[in-house]
Amino acid sequence: MSDTTSRPRFRLFVDAPLSEGVAVALTRDQTHYLASVMRAELGEMVLLFNGTDGEWAARIAALPKAGAALVPERQTRPQAPEPDLWLLAAPLKKDRTDLVVEKAAELGVSLLMPVFTRRTNAGRVNTDRLRAHLIEAAEQCERLSVPQLSEPCPLDKVLADWPTDRILLFLDEGGSGIPLAHVLNGMPGEKLALLVGPEGGFDAEERRLIGSKSFARAVGLGPRILRAETAAIAALAVVQALTGDWQAPPRSSP
Amino acid sequence: MSDTTSRPRFRLFVDAPLSEGVAVALTRDQTHYLASVMRAELGEMVLLFNGTDGEWAARIAALPKAGAALVPERQTRPQAPEPDLWLLAAPLKKDRTDLVVEKAAELGVSLLMPVFTRRTNAGRVNTDRLRAHLIEAAEQCERLSVPQLSEPCPLDKVLADWPTDRILLFLDEGGSGIPLAHVLNGMPGEKLALLVGPEGGFDAEERRLIGSKSFARAVGLGPRILRAETAAIAALAVVQALTGDWQAPPRSSP
Repeated sequence: MSDTTSRPRFRLFVDAPLSEGVAVALTRDQTHYLASVMRAELGEMVLLFNGTDGEWAARIAALPKAGAALVPERQTRPQAPEPDLWLLAAPLKKDRTDLVVEKAAELGVSLLMPVFTRRTNAGRVNTDRLRAHLIEAAEQCERLSVPQLSEPCPLDKVLADWPTDRILLFLDEGGSGIPLAHVLNGMPGEKLALLVGPEGGFDAEERRLIGSKSFARAVGLGPRILRAETAAIAALAVVQALTGDWQAPPRSSP
Repeated sequence: MSDTTSRPRFRLFVDAPLSEGVAVALTRDQTHYLASVMRAELGEMVLLFNGTDGEWAARIAALPKAGAALVPERQTRPQAPEPDLWLLAAPLKKDRTDLVVEKAAELGVSLLMPVFTRRTNAGRVNTDRLRAHLIEAAEQCERLSVPQLSEPCPLDKVLADWPTDRILLFLDEGGSGIPLAHVLNGMPGEKLALLVGPEGGFDAEERRLIGSKSFARAVGLGPRILRAETAAIAALAVVQALTGDWQAPPRSSP
C-alpha cells in the first residue's frame, strides 16, 4: 500500500459528485489506465475532481475491469473560482487542433468552441477527441475544472447569437488590430472571448462581418505572421497575464 | 511566367549577400523544394532574406539540380531592428522541442540556447534539426532574420558565464515566482532572457543555484502547472506583448 501522505501518482476527472465516503465509479478506460497501464494497486490514493466539489484524495477500493471504485477520504482543495474566458477557434490540421485544445485547458479557458469559417475544412472536428484532450490536459495542469466544449458552430451563427455582455477579441492577422496589451488595458473586468481563424485566415467578407459587430475588437499580435495555433496560445497567455488569474501567485505544490 | 506584381509563393532564407543583380545560389535542398515539390518555373519570383540585407524579390534565373540561381531585382523591405530576446530551454521530447523551436522563431526570439539540466536527457539535441526548424519558421512568419542557435550548454556553465547586463527570467514552477507581468513592468528597456526547465523541472540544487544569481528573477505563470513547452511559448508572448515589439502595429500585408 502506498504512503498516503505523499502526493498521489494519479489525478483524474470524474463526472460524479464527490463527498467523503461516497464511492465513485471510474470508467472502463480510466480503470484500464490505472490498473493495466500504471499498475495501480488496491488501497492506492488517487486525486479526483469534477468541476464543482473541489479536489479529493480517494482510495482505490476495488479494481474490476468494468470500473474501479474509489472512495473519497478528504478534500485536498476546495472548489475555487476560475477565469471566465472563452476561446473560439477554427479547426486546424489534426495535430495543430490538438495543440490548441491542450493549451486552452492549461491556459485556463472556461469554454472552447470550434467555429466553422469559409476557409475551414469542416470535416475535421471530432468532439469526443477534443473532449478527451481537454480532460487529460485539465488532469495534468491541476485545474479544478474541465473547459466546457461547445458544439461546433458556423461563424455567422456565432456572431448572430452573441451574448452582448462579452467582448469578442478578434485576432486579426490583416494588420488592422490594436496591440492586444493596449486593448486589454482599456477593459478591466470585462468578460472576454478570443476568436482565432483557420490556417488561411478569415476572408474579406468575414472580416467585414466581424468588424461590424459592436462587441468585437480587432487585436494585433505584433509584426510577425503567427500561425493560427501560435496566435491562440500567445493571446491566451497575454490575457491571463494581464487580466486573468496570473496576477495571483502560483499555488504551492502540496 | 508569373505576374511579378503579385506576392511570390516562396520566401527563403539564404546565407549570402543580397543586392540588386547579383545572383544567389540556393542549396540543393532548397532547389529540390522549389523545382520538384512546388513546381516553380524559370522566371518566377521568390522572396529572399539573409538577416542583414532586408528582403528582396528575386527571379529564378536557372534551375539546375545542384543549386538554382536567383537574381535579386528589388528590395521589398529594408532590414529593421528586431527584438533582443534570448530563450534558454532544456531539451524536451522531440515533438515538444520542435514546437518550442518553431514558436521561438515566430515569437521573435533572437537567440535560442539548449540548456542541459540534471533532469535533461542529454542525448536529445540535434542542432542541425533545430536550425532547420528555425529557418523554416522564420521563412513562414515574415521575419527578416533567423534566430541564432547557440551550442547546447550545461546549466552551471551558462550561469557561470552569464553576461551581467542581461536579466534572466527563470520560469519557476515551484511557486516562488512573481507574476511575469509584474516583473516586466519593473524593468522597461532591460535586455532579457527566459529560462525554461525540462519536463521534470529543475531540481532543488539547480533552483538554489539560479536563485543565488543577482541577474536572475524567478517569475510565475499563474496557478496552473504548465507543461515546459507551454511555459516557454506563453512567457515569450507576454514578454513581446509588454516589452517587445508587439507594442508596434502589425506590418500590413504587401
